[in-house]
Amino acid sequence: MAEHPLDKVFHPRAVAVVGVSSSQGRGFGGSFFQALVEAGFPEIGGLYPVNPKVSEIDGFRCYPSLLDTPDPVDHVISQVPASVAPQLVDQCIAKGVRSIHFFTAGFSETGDEAMAATEREMIAKLRAAGIRAIGPNCMGLYVPSSRLAFMNGFSMEPGNVFLLSQSGANAGEIVGDLTSRGVRFSKAISYGNGADLKAHDFLDYAASDPETDVVAAYIEGVQDGPAFFEALKRCALTKRTIVLKGGLTQSGSRAAHSHTGSLAGSSAIFDAVCRQAGAVRAEAMDDLLDLVVAASTDPHRITGRGVALIGGGGGGFAVLSADAIDREGLTVPRMPASAVQKMREFIPVAGSSVNNPIDAMPDADHMEEMLRIVATAEGIDMMFMSAIGGMRRPPVMPSASEPDPDEQSKAVVEAAKQSAAQMRRLQDETGTTFVGVQRGGRMARMMGLSSEAFAQAAYEQGIAAFPSVTRAARTIAKVLEWRAYREGLPEIV
Amino acid sequence: MAEHPLDKVFHPRAVAVVGVSSSQGRGFGGSFFQALVEAGFPEIGGLYPVNPKVSEIDGFRCYPSLLDTPDPVDHVISQVPASVAPQLVDQCIAKGVRSIHFFTAGFSETGDEAMAATEREMIAKLRAAGIRAIGPNCMGLYVPSSRLAFMNGFSMEPGNVFLLSQSGANAGEIVGDLTSRGVRFSKAISYGNGADLKAHDFLDYAASDPETDVVAAYIEGVQDGPAFFEALKRCALTKRTIVLKGGLTQSGSRAAHSHTGSLAGSSAIFDAVCRQAGAVRAEAMDDLLDLVVAASTDPHRITGRGVALIGGGGGGFAVLSADAIDREGLTVPRMPASAVQKMREFIPVAGSSVNNPIDAMPDADHMEEMLRIVATAEGIDMMFMSAIGGMRRPPVMPSASEPDPDEQSKAVVEAAKQSAAQMRRLQDETGTTFVGVQRGGRMARMMGLSSEAFAQAAYEQGIAAFPSVTRAARTIAKVLEWRAYREGLPEIV
Repeated sequence: MAEHPLDKVFHPRAVAVVGVSSSQGRGFGGSFFQALVEAGFPEIGGLYPVNPKVSEIDGFRCYPSLLDTPDPVDHVISQVPASVAPQLVDQCIAKGVRSIHFFTAGFSETGDEAMAATEREMIAKLRAAGIRAIGPNCMGLYVPSSRLAFMNGFSMEPGNVFLLSQSGANAGEIVGDLTSRGVRFSKAISYGNGADLKAHDFLDYAASDPETDVVAAYIEGVQDGPAFFEALKRCALTKRTIVLKGGLTQSGSRAAHSHTGSLAGSSAIFDAVCRQAGAVRAEAMDDLLDLVVAASTDPHRITGRGVALIGGGGGGFAVLSADAIDREGLTVPRMPASAVQKMREFIPVAGSSVNNPIDAMPDADHMEEMLRIVATAEGIDMMFMSAIGGMRRPPVMPSASEPDPDEQSKAVVEAAKQSAAQMRRLQDETGTTFVGVQRGGRMARMMGLSSEAFAQAAYEQGIAAFPSVTRAARTIAKVLEWRAYREGLPEIV
Repeated sequence: MAEHPLDKVFHPRAVAVVGVSSSQGRGFGGSFFQALVEAGFPEIGGLYPVNPKVSEIDGFRCYPSLLDTPDPVDHVISQVPASVAPQLVDQCIAKGVRSIHFFTAGFSETGDEAMAATEREMIAKLRAAGIRAIGPNCMGLYVPSSRLAFMNGFSMEPGNVFLLSQSGANAGEIVGDLTSRGVRFSKAISYGNGADLKAHDFLDYAASDPETDVVAAYIEGVQDGPAFFEALKRCALTKRTIVLKGGLTQSGSRAAHSHTGSLAGSSAIFDAVCRQAGAVRAEAMDDLLDLVVAASTDPHRITGRGVALIGGGGGGFAVLSADAIDREGLTVPRMPASAVQKMREFIPVAGSSVNNPIDAMPDADHMEEMLRIVATAEGIDMMFMSAIGGMRRPPVMPSASEPDPDEQSKAVVEAAKQSAAQMRRLQDETGTTFVGVQRGGRMARMMGLSSEAFAQAAYEQGIAAFPSVTRAARTIAKVLEWRAYREGLPEIV
């Protein structure tokens, strides 16, 4: 396969951070230098902090200007004030860099015509010199395989999810939240005003990126409608593609305009665009997160609507969960009499229900037998495993004498891994998809259940875990709808 | 006011726990004795554990049978197996108790006709003897002023919220989650199968309970339609009343039937019943929790739809939040030019927005001035204060050197209290309602924000805090709808 023109942007061998400050904290916007050090970029490439007022940062020599850096520089991160940015553009051209990411804000998004003109002029100059620009007003690149990160604490383990976000804060939230659910990324880009590189450029890249299977995009404004639609179609043809569009309401549209200078769009039109392209539209941030998890684990292959809800610890929870599943368009079918009879051989009548929702807590061996009976029952397409009940309880339980927290957390992780492995094993054996559903609230906390530990252990086994029954049902219903309107396109969902 | 017949049920002076086991853990169903000890019941009344196989529990003498307890007993908690329950009923009559709570399950909810008949016979006997029964198949009573609790860890600080829940697990969840948001209870009852005392009995009590301002009910089955409707009307006339009905879908109805033996109902009919009674219907558990918070703080008095969204930390968050507010039926009006001009005197153009959503981080004095300008701007009925931005950041920030966790948590609590006090002060000054909205996710965790600390500090000031912008907007839109259809009824919303 021919190299994509953007490949070099994602894989720089030398980076300069211009306008770096030594006083910036960890973890927040603006600490790019520290994030790159933590990501290990200096172990594979040259990292050059630039600031005329500083001579050294964290043991790295700091250069007075970009032109003073000793070697070729591929990628520049601009943290200089907007007023100084045009001068940095000239230096980039003189230095012969390949790409520049403007964290610098204060251009077209302010609505100020003079600053919008400055933005246009800078981009025109850079383009003429063959330099690609990301931004302005954004967080830039996160590429684990290139040791690039825009915030501290990002995982350097590469994955198969490609994220595209116009908003930097949303990019940070998405990466952070999905990472804690086990997801890993091939690339993530926050592109802000999109003055040069736009959503369609990145979608075009993702479409043929061999490291990517799932593409998630947060878009505020579509800057070139036809190009966007073409790129989205190309991308959604071969990658499971999820799009969240901000600013589709009147209030949101006004907010998007002052955030990234983006113009409004209609919800109905955007929905039609996604459908025609074969992408799935997320309606809110939670949808985007959940769809990425579903698209990168097994639930994207579920074909029916029948849910078995396995969860002890409360019939009221089962009732409301069944209501939620039904409202989202899935069903909780009654267990066939033969399955009930088999379960009643080892599950007592009092204090249990085996009619689906299944609310019973047999011992470990019988639990496995129960799950096998339910998973192979007629009408069951998926097993929703509530974090209380269907999976092993952590062996260390809260008691009057508080257990050692380290021991407890090890036990929680171990229990999560055992549950996840059991789900994988039973799924492979029965052909029915297992899905983890978590309970928040006091009860789960008291039982020492860690939704994060469980979600991660499940994800490693290709099993999706969702923060609630409602979100699990909603996500899978969306997947079913998505597959239906992809008819005729290659089967990737 | 005449004493209500149920008053004595809620205020027993001596309690026997029959079938108690010394090996039960803390915090889960079945540890009633331990929960009562922790609640301090023995300091105000007699507590008698009963079990013929045990001689002493936690320093309390254990009696072989209820009839062996030394003094009069008002209230009995039954943990005996179902097969032994009829014998305990006879003993209750002989002992002359006033009420019995059957934690014991395995009766009508199993669908077994013989056990359903046993339940009917027991209740008939008890009624004939003038003894009221709660349950079977439930958790019973939580009454802080009487030092009654059905789980460990329940607050003994009395409040003004009355909770009625057919499901014990849901009762525990609701109490736990609302307590962590600052809510306190007058009484909470889990009444299970409702064989004797039913939802309408408790609603009737709540209607005239001077300790109660807000009533929340989780119902699975309405056992006596006309009586329920009458009691709900009476209750909703004088108390802000919120009802969540489980089992309104086909799947949920089946689940409710096997949980508490309840029969189905239609969503449309139940909705009409609530509207006619002047109660508000929660559609899911989160709704119930949020509506209780709104009903017991200031947002239940909001009369308009204009939201000012105050929150730095990310324009993408502001865009999606504005979309969510709009979708729920509120609006995010543009700031008048005069207000923008005033704010621009101290807020720079780059990296900020003052057009609503407001995304700016001036220093503390200017922040207060900014909030005053926004709160008094035309069209603004409420201020949504995001946990990042609009409120003071905790002074201890995450950094390379981890701060002392105790110091950090004290600082978080102190910052939360300061934010809450500021909101209260500005609300009193401007007449515009302040509402806390929290952000989950990685960013909030990194900033050391504690949603629990903030929610509690806000609640103490009469300010509602919601776990997300969507939930805040949805709740307030529901309150507005609720008030509209209460027209003609006393103004309590």
